Amino acid sequence: MATSPFAPTSFPSLPAVGGLQLAAAEAGVRYQGRPDLMLAALPSGASIAGTFTNSSMSSAAVRWSRQSLGQLRASSTPGPSAFLVNSGNANAFTGEAGDQAAAEMARLAADAVGCPAENVFVASTGVIGEPLPLEPIAASMDTLASGLAPGNWEPAARAIMTTDTFPKGASAEATVDGAKIQVAGIAKGSGMIAPNMATMLAFVFTDAAIAPLPLQEAVTACVDETFNCITVDSDRSTSDTVLVAATGSADMPPIASASDPRLPKVTEALEKVMGSLARQIVRDGEGVTKFVTIRVTGAKSRAEARMIAFSIANSPLVKTALAGEDPNWGRIVMAVGKSGADVVQSKLCVTFGSIEVARDGAVSPNYTEEAGAAYMRRAEIEIGIDAGTGKDGEATVWTCDLSKSYVEINADYRS
Amino acid sequence: MATSPFAPTSFPSLPAVGGLQLAAAEAGVRYQGRPDLMLAALPSGASIAGTFTNSSMSSAAVRWSRQSLGQLRASSTPGPSAFLVNSGNANAFTGEAGDQAAAEMARLAADAVGCPAENVFVASTGVIGEPLPLEPIAASMDTLASGLAPGNWEPAARAIMTTDTFPKGASAEATVDGAKIQVAGIAKGSGMIAPNMATMLAFVFTDAAIAPLPLQEAVTACVDETFNCITVDSDRSTSDTVLVAATGSADMPPIASASDPRLPKVTEALEKVMGSLARQIVRDGEGVTKFVTIRVTGAKSRAEARMIAFSIANSPLVKTALAGEDPNWGRIVMAVGKSGADVVQSKLCVTFGSIEVARDGAVSPNYTEEAGAAYMRRAEIEIGIDAGTGKDGEATVWTCDLSKSYVEINADYRS
Repeated sequence: MATSPFAPTSFPSLPAVGGLQLAAAEAGVRYQGRPDLMLAALPSGASIAGTFTNSSMSSAAVRWSRQSLGQLRASSTPGPSAFLVNSGNANAFTGEAGDQAAAEMARLAADAVGCPAENVFVASTGVIGEPLPLEPIAASMDTLASGLAPGNWEPAARAIMTTDTFPKGASAEATVDGAKIQVAGIAKGSGMIAPNMATMLAFVFTDAAIAPLPLQEAVTACVDETFNCITVDSDRSTSDTVLVAATGSADMPPIASASDPRLPKVTEALEKVMGSLARQIVRDGEGVTKFVTIRVTGAKSRAEARMIAFSIANSPLVKTALAGEDPNWGRIVMAVGKSGADVVQSKLCVTFGSIEVARDGAVSPNYTEEAGAAYMRRAEIEIGIDAGTGKDGEATVWTCDLSKSYVEINADYRS
Repeated sequence: MATSPFAPTSFPSLPAVGGLQLAAAEAGVRYQGRPDLMLAALPSGASIAGTFTNSSMSSAAVRWSRQSLGQLRASSTPGPSAFLVNSGNANAFTGEAGDQAAAEMARLAADAVGCPAENVFVASTGVIGEPLPLEPIAASMDTLASGLAPGNWEPAARAIMTTDTFPKGASAEATVDGAKIQVAGIAKGSGMIAPNMATMLAFVFTDAAIAPLPLQEAVTACVDETFNCITVDSDRSTSDTVLVAATGSADMPPIASASDPRLPKVTEALEKVMGSLARQIVRDGEGVTKFVTIRVTGAKSRAEARMIAFSIANSPLVKTALAGEDPNWGRIVMAVGKSGADVVQSKLCVTFGSIEVARDGAVSPNYTEEAGAAYMRRAEIEIGIDAGTGKDGEATVWTCDLSKSYVEINADYRS
């Protein structure tokens, strides 16, 4: 598979996050000759927050981790915790055997790091519907346990990849009332990406001291502005998981409530990392040749602005035109029209970057096909829509084009 | 563009419908060397019913024809009427000039057949956002008027094509209380096809005698079971139009109300024709290699069954797997999961034709990948879903695969 044209030349240098240790191993669950198993070990007292797919076909791993999250939140002395993640098999739609496999993964990780199995979060990504082989995972646990170290970001990021063509990582730091905090994370895409959590795994860590409830509040808000604003192909996975852990090793009194005035600073750093990871997922969308930002203004509400933006972002006809570098703005208008959002046709405006394409319901007098065609040859495209309702609902969504490579990649994924 | 593998060897032989005359001309609006303008002339007293796109970006032609429909229904002595249809330019998102162009098309047709402009229905299909050139249309009206004849089905069907690779026609006859009636029609696809009327034009004619209101009732019911059950790519056009005219020349007293016991027979014949045209549109979906029937049972309601069926039918990952002849049923489960419909995972069943793939939330013990792969090599695929709720909501939807040719066709449609 060709590497995305947006792949960075190297994996970013990510800081150690106090208390966190990472390890990766080549278990051979499905992929050979590359890491496919990742373990993150977290110290006693770490707070964990998360969001999961809303698919009614959620995987066994998602069901297990949802339960762990609830139990950990209810516990007053949580003890150490861990994340164990495999790629190559989603352990989804695998019936009761799948639930048992997820529980067994948790037990293996618990043994490796010395914590109760209920404190372990598991995630699995890959093919749906095939039984998860546990032997290769069990056989790799010693390697993982002995490999745990603070700096293993890149192998960890590689271990969770499926059709991704580059490993994804990001970091940010912030000063919170005099204390310096670190945030760093990894993620994987890259197909089946749609809002409400796509096949997407992201694991973000910070040394900030923050209780589980304010952390969850910050994470939910950040997901809404980042991972829930991307789409590659409108398909939503059974396995989507975002987990955020705060180890508390930074030199600060813990943030105990959502009204703590220090919370916005932490949230801002989290959003920076999660936004970068989300956009990296789109930049590695299957078969991507264009990175597209869609900004909608003038809608009745943020929800309606999102409807319009996603209708454009998910339209196969818009996406194939983008792949062909065709400034076919009529299809953008079509996608606005089918969105279901309230729009005033006679006031609708469309822009490509700073080029005004259409205004007040018709092509702009100064727009030329040549200018549009030249703009479309860029690798990064910005589409602007003013819905014309005179209200201030707005939203930004990131997506990519639909190229022949997308079809090639997906027509025969399993062979 | 390669012809669809589902193209029939020849255009079907369609019967004359008493009172109807058709003509086609090569106006050269955009396409050269092929008919691109179609005129249908209808006698005094014909009843007309229709449904149009629900896009908020509906084209000028759609706005005009909606108005004609309302006026004609309100009139007690409607006089003759006509349909004038061009391909190559959608006259959509063309502002006030577009409305004027639609009105001018109506005036040209009115002059040609001798009726008021308000009795003319216009339809335009093709590129969005470019001004509709009226000169080539005006210059072709004499040719159209002198060419009007009862049997011009094939040139008429060819004149309305855009990216279609074959002209579409269908007919049925019925005996209604001793009187024989004919129904015949033509349609065009073949991209931007989604429920709630896609870029799809269909014109259906019958010699049945039936008042406008019961005709509209029959047509609305038929559209719901036919054109609203197909999807090629989930995109919905600005121009979709289904018009049905009943000339009343059959030897029967008119059906005056929706409770007339003869109406179901007429509806059945209309549904036969509209269903055939709808499935022909899918069989000519852009880049089609597979014709796919998705049948959902066991959902909470028909609406929920449709949500599940369309979620599968529009999933790029399902459609690309179909193109690759990959029996990747995990993606079907994913699409069920994202549909938003109520589903019981532990009771979900999936079938390919008569092959049981999954039952009770896991792969079936007897299913083999070989059997699935062999089934996927068929040109016509049937996917069955039992949603497992124990209720009797069901729906059938027709779609096609997403192949590399779809991307090729759409990446550079305008050049």
